[in-house]
Amino acid sequence: MSKILGVIGGMGPAATVAFLARVQALTPAKGDADHIRVVMDLNPQVPDRNTRPGEAEAVLGQMAERLAAAGAEVIAMPCNTAHAQAGAIRALCAAKGLGFIDMIAATADAAAASGSKRIGVLATPGGERLYAEALAARGIETVLLEGAGREAFMALVYGVKRGDVGEAARAGMSRLAQALLDAGAHGLIAGCTEVPLLLKAENAPVPLRDSAEVLAQACVAACRV
Amino acid sequence: MSKILGVIGGMGPAATVAFLARVQALTPAKGDADHIRVVMDLNPQVPDRNTRPGEAEAVLGQMAERLAAAGAEVIAMPCNTAHAQAGAIRALCAAKGLGFIDMIAATADAAAASGSKRIGVLATPGGERLYAEALAARGIETVLLEGAGREAFMALVYGVKRGDVGEAARAGMSRLAQALLDAGAHGLIAGCTEVPLLLKAENAPVPLRDSAEVLAQACVAACRV
Repeated sequence: MSKILGVIGGMGPAATVAFLARVQALTPAKGDADHIRVVMDLNPQVPDRNTRPGEAEAVLGQMAERLAAAGAEVIAMPCNTAHAQAGAIRALCAAKGLGFIDMIAATADAAAASGSKRIGVLATPGGERLYAEALAARGIETVLLEGAGREAFMALVYGVKRGDVGEAARAGMSRLAQALLDAGAHGLIAGCTEVPLLLKAENAPVPLRDSAEVLAQACVAACRV
Repeated sequence: MSKILGVIGGMGPAATVAFLARVQALTPAKGDADHIRVVMDLNPQVPDRNTRPGEAEAVLGQMAERLAAAGAEVIAMPCNTAHAQAGAIRALCAAKGLGFIDMIAATADAAAASGSKRIGVLATPGGERLYAEALAARGIETVLLEGAGREAFMALVYGVKRGDVGEAARAGMSRLAQALLDAGAHGLIAGCTEVPLLLKAENAPVPLRDSAEVLAQACVAACRV
């Protein structure tokens, strides 16, 4: 019997569905019953994490509370940026004795295990801050996009949210990954759940740690007990 | 603002994820916030609908109750076979004033709209019974697989549940669709949510009403108000 996974989703909607598919793909299963039970709140109307962080944190905490009431024993949130507003979720999990899998910490750990000391991060401005801090704590220098590259990145992310995962968008994300390598990165982190919808680890020019994949692996490990 | 969709899922897990992706694909959206909020219980451990129907009905009713507590206003269950055990769900929705979208009725209506009077149904034995009744009520004759074809169908469905969506499986499902046409069907219903994972409407030899697509369309229509 596995633990029930609670997924705080919707940021963005397509990334959440891709995350559920990854959890299933990583679960050894001969039939339905071997899969992990998942309760999910896919809420595309969470207040903007950049402009209304306090409101976002409160809504995310309420979502976690409802998932706990629905039976969730382990909580995961497949959105890197929103981890800056995970305070209420962490407090709830601590109070109720639930596990919260920190996507940023898990991905930074996985990147540190590679031995690379200069890692490029593809993330939103909020995600960049979280990763720079987490990687610095592990003795790793963070390489980030700048100027036009940063703007191009956010345009691609918002494009995915509109459903644009076409060839031009995929080529654009590859170019941004290459720009981080040109700036001295020896490895990459896909630190935004929209990135793997455009750039797969197997197509990346150097080892790419995909935060969604790392989180999915950690969820399977935590729930299949 | 859209209504919150409650999804009773896990039968099977991959079909539920594919269903969520369809709902998103059918939702006109320029960004995250235009998408429908979805609360879901993906429960791969619902008791077997064929051998333990009473227990299955009770568990499905409890799942609906939890989704209602989590805010669901419209309930959908992307599994045709389980609709034979939807009694407790219907009772709960009636008591709480929630909408329940009947996948069998919606798909039978869509098939009836095509004008065809002999329709082949790819479904489990339980699903076949539900569709035969629903189509008869609409003056349509149902054409079903027999003997070895029926066994081959169930083997393909259980294969999908193990993750087998390979070329041989897809060719096998196409052959079964052709067998229904050879038996006199003028149109087809994919009456099991595993079918579209092997046979897409655009690859079918005649008009194929996909029950998962019909349900997703009905959910978008009911929730985007």
